Amino acid sequence: MPKMISWKGTPIWIASLLATATMVILLSVHQTQSGEAIIRSLKPSASDYVRYTTDGKMIMPIDYREWVFLTSGVNMSYNEQANESSETVFDNVFVNPSAYASFKKTGTWPDKTVFVLEIREGVGKGSINKTGKFQTPRISALEVHVKDEARFPGKWAFFNFDVDKPQPATVIPRTVQCYACHEQHAAVDTTFVQFYPTLLPIAREYKSFSKAYLNEEKAQH
Amino acid sequence: MPKMISWKGTPIWIASLLATATMVILLSVHQTQSGEAIIRSLKPSASDYVRYTTDGKMIMPIDYREWVFLTSGVNMSYNEQANESSETVFDNVFVNPSAYASFKKTGTWPDKTVFVLEIREGVGKGSINKTGKFQTPRISALEVHVKDEARFPGKWAFFNFDVDKPQPATVIPRTVQCYACHEQHAAVDTTFVQFYPTLLPIAREYKSFSKAYLNEEKAQH
Repeated sequence: MPKMISWKGTPIWIASLLATATMVILLSVHQTQSGEAIIRSLKPSASDYVRYTTDGKMIMPIDYREWVFLTSGVNMSYNEQANESSETVFDNVFVNPSAYASFKKTGTWPDKTVFVLEIREGVGKGSINKTGKFQTPRISALEVHVKDEARFPGKWAFFNFDVDKPQPATVIPRTVQCYACHEQHAAVDTTFVQFYPTLLPIAREYKSFSKAYLNEEKAQH
Repeated sequence: MPKMISWKGTPIWIASLLATATMVILLSVHQTQSGEAIIRSLKPSASDYVRYTTDGKMIMPIDYREWVFLTSGVNMSYNEQANESSETVFDNVFVNPSAYASFKKTGTWPDKTVFVLEIREGVGKGSINKTGKFQTPRISALEVHVKDEARFPGKWAFFNFDVDKPQPATVIPRTVQCYACHEQHAAVDTTFVQFYPTLLPIAREYKSFSKAYLNEEKAQH
């Protein structure tokens, strides 16, 4: 029997095969981590869209214009007397992409849904535009409605940012009227899906309307 | 000298090392391909947003509501007499995300930029809304403005889709007024950046305004 080349008592060809197997395993693990890192960096998780300071204030989202646009209304108000002035305001609504993807599959909102309501000033005549109104670079208000089940007693909370001095915002107390109004009138999970044209048919398909909204619809027909 | 185990004349430990090296190379290649495939699937290249049939018609983009929103205007028209009816129309403008990212870095549009103009009907009273207008699920028109330098003589082209019967659209001939109007009045590279509130300051910073727009601005001040 020939004496085989060995490494610490193991025949060298077995050692080589073990080394191969080890490298294959290490490379597979590395590949998986690398793939996940790519996914993470390109497709932020829902929680990446909402960040708080250590004392519970919300940090203003800065890239919401690259989220999913839900709708834009003009001079909308709950009050008949509102906006009798000649000023025009547009309200643009955006939601974080992962929440939008989830809504399309379920008809409702997942935890860590973040809405941004941007109020932007409109003007009439300008450039070749002769009638109607268009939006200007001037933002007059920025509000956030966020679903964070572990953090807020009613699951959802509102924040109002100072657009002239961007700094973390304190949560709006639950006693403020916006909470009650959203709970009493909003079509899906305290959000005004009745005003979001691409989501309204999805909510109808998934039958995810609130009782309040179904009653409102019944009363109108 | 001991006789070594061999495979086709090559000592087995050398064969094993060669096999290891080969597997490392193959796995590296696989890893790179896999990483790129993940990137491609999550972050489509600009050309993924515009597709044509073999006879040169454009296939209607279906996911433009998940692209980047540029603006929404209401009842806009070049014509003072337009829209004297009581109907409300909103025009929502979207652009493919890779073109938007490029505009932020350069102040102008790359090849394969795709704009979608969605005309959506608006209504007034509804749910808790008492004044102003909001958008409805009813789309009345869908137009595309695309930059495809190799395909179109003027680099850009327009397409008009039938929203009731989605099917590939034929390019609008260059003699139609929309081309001349965009060339004569649009602020950046035949696009109406003067109406896109987040892009107007970027174009100003990069000094990418068209001569026509600079003259128009001068005349207004």
